[in-house]
Amino acid sequence: MSLDPFFTPNSVAVIGASTKPHKLGYAVLDNLVNGGYLTEGRQVHPINPKAETILDLPAYPSVNDVPGPIDLAVIVIPYPLVPDALRTCGEKGIPATIVISAGFREAGMEGLQRERELIEIAKEYNIRLIGPNCLGVIDTFTPMNASFSAGLPPSGPMAFMSQSGALGTAILDWAQAGRLGLSKFVSLGNKADVSETDLLLAWQDDPHSRVILCYIEGLPDGQEFIRVARHVSKKVPIVVLKSGVTQAGSRAVSSHTGSLAGSEQAYQAAFHQAGVLRAHSLQDLFDYALAFGYLPPLRGDRIAIITNAGGPGILATDALERAGLRLARFEPECIRELEQFLPDAASAANPVDLLGDAMSDRYRFALDQISADPHVDGILVILAPQALTDIGETARVVSEIAGKVDIPVLTCFMGEAQVKAGTEILEAHNVPNYSFPERAAMVLKGMSTFRGYQTMALPTFETFEVDHTSVRETLDRALSEGRVTIGDAEARDILTAYGLKIPASELAETGDQAVEIANRIGYPVVLKIASPDILHKTDIGGVKIGLQNPTDIRDAFDLITYRAQRYTPEARLWGCLVQKMAPPGLEVLIGMNRDPQFGPLVTFGLGGIYVETLKDVAFRIAPFSRREAEDMLGEIRAHALLDGVRGEPPTDKAAVVDALLRIAQLVTDFPEIAELDINPFIVYEEGLGGISIDMRLVLNPETPQKGLNHEAGPAGRNS
Amino acid sequence: MSLDPFFTPNSVAVIGASTKPHKLGYAVLDNLVNGGYLTEGRQVHPINPKAETILDLPAYPSVNDVPGPIDLAVIVIPYPLVPDALRTCGEKGIPATIVISAGFREAGMEGLQRERELIEIAKEYNIRLIGPNCLGVIDTFTPMNASFSAGLPPSGPMAFMSQSGALGTAILDWAQAGRLGLSKFVSLGNKADVSETDLLLAWQDDPHSRVILCYIEGLPDGQEFIRVARHVSKKVPIVVLKSGVTQAGSRAVSSHTGSLAGSEQAYQAAFHQAGVLRAHSLQDLFDYALAFGYLPPLRGDRIAIITNAGGPGILATDALERAGLRLARFEPECIRELEQFLPDAASAANPVDLLGDAMSDRYRFALDQISADPHVDGILVILAPQALTDIGETARVVSEIAGKVDIPVLTCFMGEAQVKAGTEILEAHNVPNYSFPERAAMVLKGMSTFRGYQTMALPTFETFEVDHTSVRETLDRALSEGRVTIGDAEARDILTAYGLKIPASELAETGDQAVEIANRIGYPVVLKIASPDILHKTDIGGVKIGLQNPTDIRDAFDLITYRAQRYTPEARLWGCLVQKMAPPGLEVLIGMNRDPQFGPLVTFGLGGIYVETLKDVAFRIAPFSRREAEDMLGEIRAHALLDGVRGEPPTDKAAVVDALLRIAQLVTDFPEIAELDINPFIVYEEGLGGISIDMRLVLNPETPQKGLNHEAGPAGRNS
Repeated sequence: MSLDPFFTPNSVAVIGASTKPHKLGYAVLDNLVNGGYLTEGRQVHPINPKAETILDLPAYPSVNDVPGPIDLAVIVIPYPLVPDALRTCGEKGIPATIVISAGFREAGMEGLQRERELIEIAKEYNIRLIGPNCLGVIDTFTPMNASFSAGLPPSGPMAFMSQSGALGTAILDWAQAGRLGLSKFVSLGNKADVSETDLLLAWQDDPHSRVILCYIEGLPDGQEFIRVARHVSKKVPIVVLKSGVTQAGSRAVSSHTGSLAGSEQAYQAAFHQAGVLRAHSLQDLFDYALAFGYLPPLRGDRIAIITNAGGPGILATDALERAGLRLARFEPECIRELEQFLPDAASAANPVDLLGDAMSDRYRFALDQISADPHVDGILVILAPQALTDIGETARVVSEIAGKVDIPVLTCFMGEAQVKAGTEILEAHNVPNYSFPERAAMVLKGMSTFRGYQTMALPTFETFEVDHTSVRETLDRALSEGRVTIGDAEARDILTAYGLKIPASELAETGDQAVEIANRIGYPVVLKIASPDILHKTDIGGVKIGLQNPTDIRDAFDLITYRAQRYTPEARLWGCLVQKMAPPGLEVLIGMNRDPQFGPLVTFGLGGIYVETLKDVAFRIAPFSRREAEDMLGEIRAHALLDGVRGEPPTDKAAVVDALLRIAQLVTDFPEIAELDINPFIVYEEGLGGISIDMRLVLNPETPQKGLNHEAGPAGRNS
Repeated sequence: MSLDPFFTPNSVAVIGASTKPHKLGYAVLDNLVNGGYLTEGRQVHPINPKAETILDLPAYPSVNDVPGPIDLAVIVIPYPLVPDALRTCGEKGIPATIVISAGFREAGMEGLQRERELIEIAKEYNIRLIGPNCLGVIDTFTPMNASFSAGLPPSGPMAFMSQSGALGTAILDWAQAGRLGLSKFVSLGNKADVSETDLLLAWQDDPHSRVILCYIEGLPDGQEFIRVARHVSKKVPIVVLKSGVTQAGSRAVSSHTGSLAGSEQAYQAAFHQAGVLRAHSLQDLFDYALAFGYLPPLRGDRIAIITNAGGPGILATDALERAGLRLARFEPECIRELEQFLPDAASAANPVDLLGDAMSDRYRFALDQISADPHVDGILVILAPQALTDIGETARVVSEIAGKVDIPVLTCFMGEAQVKAGTEILEAHNVPNYSFPERAAMVLKGMSTFRGYQTMALPTFETFEVDHTSVRETLDRALSEGRVTIGDAEARDILTAYGLKIPASELAETGDQAVEIANRIGYPVVLKIASPDILHKTDIGGVKIGLQNPTDIRDAFDLITYRAQRYTPEARLWGCLVQKMAPPGLEVLIGMNRDPQFGPLVTFGLGGIYVETLKDVAFRIAPFSRREAEDMLGEIRAHALLDGVRGEPPTDKAAVVDALLRIAQLVTDFPEIAELDINPFIVYEEGLGGISIDMRLVLNPETPQKGLNHEAGPAGRNS
């Protein structure tokens, strides 16, 4: 169902509208009445059983008493009364409600129970619900202020959603000061129904919104968020500030909204896969907002710097390079023109130094030339207020040219007292100005990242031919026997069923049989005790590696059997597994654990003692595409080892990618697999494949058959 | 010689004082005359051969014509006239000059020549010189504005020096807007004489300066900077913004001031060793300046957060934890008091959530309680402008308490339009306010780092008993033979002379002799061809490892000899080196290369293929203390390997530290050693030491015997 009634309703009821100016129920009504909403036959209905009129509007005891339909109800009454009010809204056929009242999930177990009741009622009557425990909703183009914030913020291209109401008030206060222009503002509160995902879908084609900004503390349905954001981010940049990323932060989240914080690695992977730009601080969020809101897209990473000061030019160059961008190399013609116009001591190469006595004419000339150079994708204009600098006129010139050209022009006018004369002009012309060159570089980097997201093809998920049934049987057998750990023998079957290579192996009941098997599969071999009752074979000396000949094998068979009998007399012994020893190669690890918010988080890293210590690993949420799997290989710090160093041949990266994709399919098909580890997976030279040596699975007997069960409400029902 | 005349002169001459208001020579005079300097019998003398009076002061054709002594001369004349003017200053006995004129080192080879002339004259007459190519000098307490900047900035506790004049103008403009309060301001220009180091010495005991801020592009005498800053940073925090750190940035530096940029690693190590706090952006520099300028020192890392909003509280918690700080755990008594006073829904645990309807009384109560809790080292007060928030009164309360308590109180009042009512009050009371919680966390982290620097003992440098003479002879022999690479045999002698352990080895002329040696030193051994003419032994198959018995040795001797004769028939063959093979252990590397600005940069890292790929290394400038060497071991990412992982015993870290210190002594004693590599150095279990296996030295025949030769002038002469 459309979320339009939240933003462009024709009639709004305020349930709990108050006559007392210090009450929230008054503030909401006041914002609706005096915020420009009441035009073109639109109606606002105060609902208050004790009042005749409020703010000159007739008040009704209940929404049922209002003549004609109501599109949106804002509920601002004490929490015990909310369920009944919501039911009445349902009876009246109101499609959308904003519950501002607090006292729900955030207030402990009883509150959670109350919130579940709300969700039930909303489901029953097919009502969409924002909140509870929120600040309200604003649409500056309607215009409508259905919140208790002070005043309507200025219109602009930024759509903002916040899980924290207080953060919302700060954002609105910055907007009031002219720092941001908002199209829509939603305080999501407890997200009993409407979630970030719903708003992404609702806003993706909004003509007024050029960027979507989100403050998120937790995402109940992470997989759904990825699926939706992946598509929306092709159309409009999504910038997310996610809090609660560190351990202490997570504790604060739990006590604050009761939402379950996902692990940092899962969020990192998810945002990347979804094409969502991560803001690492509130300041990042703001700085991105300006650029995405007002600038044309960045089409490449070649940046020109124009400055009247050497030092700041160096700082900007440092920052750009650190951010992974490049200094543009101008066309010879452009450099010639610049050299002719500028004084001798100026630098016509990038960064262009106009010198300390530069007036606006030099800025104009340089901007005209450089913005016309096809080798330039974006321009950063720096100004330091020197003795002769004409700050105001320079700001006018920059604003004029920035408004004409189709590449982003950002500015860094440094200082404040004198420089204000320029920054006010830039702000009025929507030219993003950053006080420090490093901020501008960070923003350009973000624009470049977004360009990468936008040009990347939507992922396609391959499906391999696998033996699903055999895995189903293996898992069911284990679960029916009450086992949650799956050891080598059964894990081998599972991997084989999903097309992963494992070393050849057979069960031998006698030493002679073991020799016969080894003669057939080839030396050297490993012998492992085979028993359903012995899980940790190594601990009892039940494994012997590197056996080169029949004598070694017979000795090992007897030794292992003797030890197993002696240390675990009650164990059923089936004999020994004879396994061909894999030749040496590069050891990597492939793993998976299940994130509570995003589901299967697949890990890739190098194996071995160094890497365990260095934690050099990459993550993706399954399912992922072949390209995403390839990216994982490139993301680890030691990725050069995969390509071969010190003259070694490159490894078979395709085999690793194949294994990652098959594992992703396995853990997607079987949600009961809670953890999985293949360590080591040995990868050989290009073309020679790879093989899983040791593997381990942990099951979760309580996991439902498919997907994640989230109780946060009907958030996903309309997708 | 004291630099006092630059800051508190009794008489100043402006050479090049102009009658024309748009000239710099007018601006400087105007700033002196109208900037409050002319009190208490102080004098300003315009020097201009064509004017009678300027700004109502009598003008003189030359400083020689001025009656009475002159303490400071500011030179603002075209560059060809500067040398003569400087000489005249010398004749007049003026102890200090500021050369504002440009056209020197920054203007190419001829300019460099002119600058050298200035340096000669300054030396001859014992004149201290700031500049050339600079903005001037300001002391707001004298008060004196001997610059061409517009107006005197507000007084305050921050002393600022900048290698970039333009960056200086931006800083002054921020100061004018009330963002910073400056005690002293020096635009260093080309640093022909007075350098950062000189100013650190001059400012370390300045009662008006509570923090020293530096913008640096390059440091000609890095060793001297470390020596001085190490002491000064015990008294006053030094915050440095160093630009030109990336490759592109370095190019910009070279073209900008002609100063040589040091490698990022060397700067990083040097600042750390010197106790200098690194600002990674201009914004960092500012944010640090406020905190160090106005707050009492942070005595621990236990931070309390007081907030009226959950979301921002989480953001702050995240940021603090990411910065390596801790949330304070309050005393039970403190929590009880808070619980009693605050509403039920509030959180009395850290972060303290006063709730959205908190008025100033809750802030006052929480601040009073928490600032008295001995488990709290610093407080961050967060405010989001919610419906009922009394922003102004809360700011007054916070300011009042922050001014009384002896721990740092920082604020984060979020927003702008409404919030301004509070931030202006905070600013007026010198309470550092940061718009974003992440900035405040960064600042607290910096304060904590500075506390670490301040409490750390000054390093003591150990000197080992070594055989200096034998190394001198080895190096002289190599250099006299025109060799710059020193291979295994000679390198062994050098390391032995400095007390490093190397594997036992002896020269064998026959296979039988090799066996006899092996029987004596023990198996297994390595055989290497011994010839002064074969440098790359491995390339011709001249090395055989892992020889276990006499037969292996005889075979290897003949094989190696045959190959050497066959592939290098002209080579003189001395026989084979028989070397005891070291038992396996943890392979690390110890290296050194010489940084052009800081000298010997010693490297420590793990050996092996993974680490080469991962570049997991730590750096220090030699000389360094035992503690600094120990820190190197802890700094690599894989440091856990040194302590033993997976049940392995800890390694002999003391042996590695010992080797690092001996290498530091070696490369300090012999500046002609340009590069050195010990790879691998094998370290064994604790108590069993370590041993250098392969080593290589590269000499620089042109290096002088001692220290660095820097031609930038007499910067270090007064230290």
